[in-house]
Amino acid sequence: MKRIRLTIAYDGTDYAGFQIQPGSRTIEGELDRALSELTGEEITVIGASRTDSGVHALGNVAVFDTESPIPAERYVPALVPYLPQDIRVTASEEVEAEWHPRHCASRKTYEYVFQCGPVEDPLMRRFGSYIRRVPDIEAMRKAAAYLVGEHDFTSFANPSSQVLMQGGSAVRTVYAVTVMKEDPAHRLAPGSCTIRIRITGSGFLYNMVRIIAGTLLQAGTGLWSPERVKEALEARDRTKAGPTAEARGLTLVGIEYL
Amino acid sequence: MKRIRLTIAYDGTDYAGFQIQPGSRTIEGELDRALSELTGEEITVIGASRTDSGVHALGNVAVFDTESPIPAERYVPALVPYLPQDIRVTASEEVEAEWHPRHCASRKTYEYVFQCGPVEDPLMRRFGSYIRRVPDIEAMRKAAAYLVGEHDFTSFANPSSQVLMQGGSAVRTVYAVTVMKEDPAHRLAPGSCTIRIRITGSGFLYNMVRIIAGTLLQAGTGLWSPERVKEALEARDRTKAGPTAEARGLTLVGIEYL
Repeated sequence: MKRIRLTIAYDGTDYAGFQIQPGSRTIEGELDRALSELTGEEITVIGASRTDSGVHALGNVAVFDTESPIPAERYVPALVPYLPQDIRVTASEEVEAEWHPRHCASRKTYEYVFQCGPVEDPLMRRFGSYIRRVPDIEAMRKAAAYLVGEHDFTSFANPSSQVLMQGGSAVRTVYAVTVMKEDPAHRLAPGSCTIRIRITGSGFLYNMVRIIAGTLLQAGTGLWSPERVKEALEARDRTKAGPTAEARGLTLVGIEYL
Repeated sequence: MKRIRLTIAYDGTDYAGFQIQPGSRTIEGELDRALSELTGEEITVIGASRTDSGVHALGNVAVFDTESPIPAERYVPALVPYLPQDIRVTASEEVEAEWHPRHCASRKTYEYVFQCGPVEDPLMRRFGSYIRRVPDIEAMRKAAAYLVGEHDFTSFANPSSQVLMQGGSAVRTVYAVTVMKEDPAHRLAPGSCTIRIRITGSGFLYNMVRIIAGTLLQAGTGLWSPERVKEALEARDRTKAGPTAEARGLTLVGIEYL
């Protein structure tokens, strides 16, 4: 028996999220089906990040166990004919039998994209959340700085989080939050730009990145002072943070195992 | 009666091209329907570039005539509720009654994207054509230089081109062809990159940009010497140029009227 680790990229727009659900099209469902068809075994993957419906990934991770003689590194090309066009396995390798994608210590990096300006760019609608007004990038950076470090992120988690419901800790470490503004010269209308929020942490609670994006935007539009984001964090109360930004703006960029 | 000029952006993936066709979803069909619903008149637009099925636009242009009292510059927001999410009007203004988007002299800019590397990026599949091997960018640039200037582009046109079938001229001026290579650091697998071909010209024959992209790739993969592209041009024979690259890699970036 071999345990194989896969790195997976997908456009999550047309999926009901990563986690398998009867009657819905999910990333996990497609991976299980493709691997089962390829190996002739009944395969169930264990995913690292159970991304929400509409969330994308460039580097999610999953493992599965198999008796198949297929060499570990051959799953990338071998799976192409079995997977839909919007899911691709980008790397594969054998790992130890006890290696687990959620239990091993890791750093995850997410990116949240807002596209801003007088009109929405239809070529970016799958990968960016649209806002009309261009936010103040310096205010967003100031607000973001309060989130860096080890904190209790209760205010930035969906209260229906399984971890929190089961009495688990909301303490996570955010290593970095960067807020970038791009003004693509050839893009659409004058005044259009892209805001890219990149966040790396030891782990993230349910909806945490989307709530952080929604909250930083409150500071960026001037509705909130950057300091109010600090107060929201300290309150340990979901109602004190900003709204949850749309799923379509979020991409899991990668997971680095330590 | 007023003549209104619209600038239009769209993700062409799910359309049978710009030009109206009975029984098919087209950009023109959606624009006509949306404008007719908004104004209560029966509107038919005249488009500048009749892009193929699967081709995208950031700045196509169309005009229509109307008696509607809607101020010319208000069509951008007014059309939002009437258009599907993958089509947006990005600018609108009144023009003279005789102004015509195809008869007035213009420079058009197209961009063709190849995504290259060991595995296809599912987040780019709508806007880039996938090739496994990373081409030689310098060879592509060398080949591209032969196309700049005023030439007879018969070799780079689909022979079923209406213009050519009706005995029209295949002489066009290409002002610039730039070939850029981007190595997005966070992207997918090692060795992945994006090749962007940007081309500006006085006008383009049917499939011309896609045939240029397919031909430059022949030079980039080393199948052809760059000089063979010059010979292909001089031959005035479609069979001497390279294959037509996939529609999904092509975007009409914009049209500048002189």
